[in-house]
Amino acid sequence: MKLQNDLIIKACKRLPTDRTPIWIMRQAGRYLPEYRAIRKKHDFLTMCKSPELAAEVTIQPVDIIGVDAAIIFSDILVIPEAMGMNLEINEGRGPVFTSPIKSRSDLNKLTDPDPSKDLKFVMDAIALTKKELNGRVPVIGFAGAPWTILTYMVEGQGSKSFSKVKKLIYGNPKLAHNILDKITSATAAYLSAQIEAGANLVQIFDTWAGILSPRDYQVFALRYVEQLIANIKRKDEPVIYFPKGVHYLMHELKECGADAISVDWTLELEKVRRKMGDKVAIQGNLDPTVLYADPPFIKREARKVMESFGKGDGHIFNLGHGILPDINPENLKELVKYVKESSKKFHKQKMGH
Amino acid sequence: MKLQNDLIIKACKRLPTDRTPIWIMRQAGRYLPEYRAIRKKHDFLTMCKSPELAAEVTIQPVDIIGVDAAIIFSDILVIPEAMGMNLEINEGRGPVFTSPIKSRSDLNKLTDPDPSKDLKFVMDAIALTKKELNGRVPVIGFAGAPWTILTYMVEGQGSKSFSKVKKLIYGNPKLAHNILDKITSATAAYLSAQIEAGANLVQIFDTWAGILSPRDYQVFALRYVEQLIANIKRKDEPVIYFPKGVHYLMHELKECGADAISVDWTLELEKVRRKMGDKVAIQGNLDPTVLYADPPFIKREARKVMESFGKGDGHIFNLGHGILPDINPENLKELVKYVKESSKKFHKQKMGH
Repeated sequence: MKLQNDLIIKACKRLPTDRTPIWIMRQAGRYLPEYRAIRKKHDFLTMCKSPELAAEVTIQPVDIIGVDAAIIFSDILVIPEAMGMNLEINEGRGPVFTSPIKSRSDLNKLTDPDPSKDLKFVMDAIALTKKELNGRVPVIGFAGAPWTILTYMVEGQGSKSFSKVKKLIYGNPKLAHNILDKITSATAAYLSAQIEAGANLVQIFDTWAGILSPRDYQVFALRYVEQLIANIKRKDEPVIYFPKGVHYLMHELKECGADAISVDWTLELEKVRRKMGDKVAIQGNLDPTVLYADPPFIKREARKVMESFGKGDGHIFNLGHGILPDINPENLKELVKYVKESSKKFHKQKMGH
Repeated sequence: MKLQNDLIIKACKRLPTDRTPIWIMRQAGRYLPEYRAIRKKHDFLTMCKSPELAAEVTIQPVDIIGVDAAIIFSDILVIPEAMGMNLEINEGRGPVFTSPIKSRSDLNKLTDPDPSKDLKFVMDAIALTKKELNGRVPVIGFAGAPWTILTYMVEGQGSKSFSKVKKLIYGNPKLAHNILDKITSATAAYLSAQIEAGANLVQIFDTWAGILSPRDYQVFALRYVEQLIANIKRKDEPVIYFPKGVHYLMHELKECGADAISVDWTLELEKVRRKMGDKVAIQGNLDPTVLYADPPFIKREARKVMESFGKGDGHIFNLGHGILPDINPENLKELVKYVKESSKKFHKQKMGH
């Protein structure tokens, strides 16, 4: 099925487009009343595991907000769950693994999931979303980066000091590397299956990359992302990598195998682009809290993001992190409309033919 | 009273020393059993406000760990409290302002504290600490940076998305600037009084600097730090500024008026030093979680920090953030001993005379 809007695919490959494409991390989520109406009736994991519900909320922001892609509604923690860990989503406290990994024997208990069986609900949700979208926009698959998944598996949940996972990498680096290896191969199979099921591109979320020193990031995070990307079976489906909080090693990042690097709002796109050269596309990076302001302010800040990237192709507009749950959806609509219209001047105008 | 150990003062001024000085953020704190023994009997704010107790725990790490400075036991939130806000320290949840600032009328209720009266307990603690230390090591005074204090005053407590303070700076920047002005002048008076009371140097903690985009950091944080430093009454007492999470604007930072800039563990000292030139000293930056490892690993990582700074003066060894409460004090002792001994080779050896 041919895509009617392939702007994001083209931007990932730095091919000419006549405007900048836009999608928003966590666009299928709590800020939308239409999402909350469904969420009220089903818990979060049930929604992830019910392809009809997942497809419905995946498509909502395409219809309501007008974004240029649909990202499949799911959670990065379905992978460790499929590897045998017990996941509970706890209102308020967030997702929790009830038995975090502590030792080699815990590692030995982990299984190699078969995505077509153990994560079939994700593949079904992708296939259903594709069918319902009927080529309107691309579908983005995703997974957590190995380091970020390791962090959750060892901490059991989010953390402030990340003491358990740091104790592991400093105290028993061999065990850490063995777990990372296992996560990496499971995730490569998972992302390959998502592409097989119809995902037009995939994003790798490295939410906790920024808690590491540059050297630790290289050894425990970046190396596995490279390995992961190299092992995803794909034709020309692009890969976007989002190393949140990483402001160093830009020269290494552009060589990691990703088609696009997503950056948070503490980086200036102009500088990132200069360091990355023409090697990769860049995604981002409006501060998510800017959406609390009024539309004129939001537009001014959005324009600054586009001006910072400058003229040319290879920019995917997004926030520097997920949209916050208490944002007014009208503000997001205004942002999307504005970027679609005003980004044209940053691209070469196509002549009629 | 002449200091017997003025290494930190000298390092702040980039004067020659025969080894690298070391102190540790939050060195007077929960990781020490001797601290916990006192804390068990008194709540946190009572300890801050009882000069005898504050002096006792301030001196503990000098005696027990062997650090090169004593930082006065206190909290950055005593300033907004002295300005009239109601502060409650809540076990588990941390410090909380029960009525955060929401409007101009809340700003109008804030007072200009007289440090010699409203914060007398801090001055008394400094004077008592000085007397008891009898010149063994310098005493460090401190305050929060205006931006970080504003964040607490508006959020009421720590936050994940900082939505309230972001709404304020985007929605009502004028009110934000007026509050920042008021905090800045109160803090300048407070730090001046600490120096008057005997602090040999002061540190400004900008814990939440890193949640801002570079431009917002410049407008809402850095500008007020410059104003603050310019207004501290001091003779030659150095000022250290710690903008946690800031990895940009190094060229502006070195001109902010601070004698030393403290950096977290995501920056490499070699690069920071190259960007800062000879303008300021640099403090930091061992990852605090490295202290979870065993002594050989800790020493290896500490050596890398010193090697990254390289040969020469102007380095104050510290962690990239506060010491964590569940660190084994023996590990910190080993670190301090190691830095004292092995840093000599990075400095010019003094000839006998």
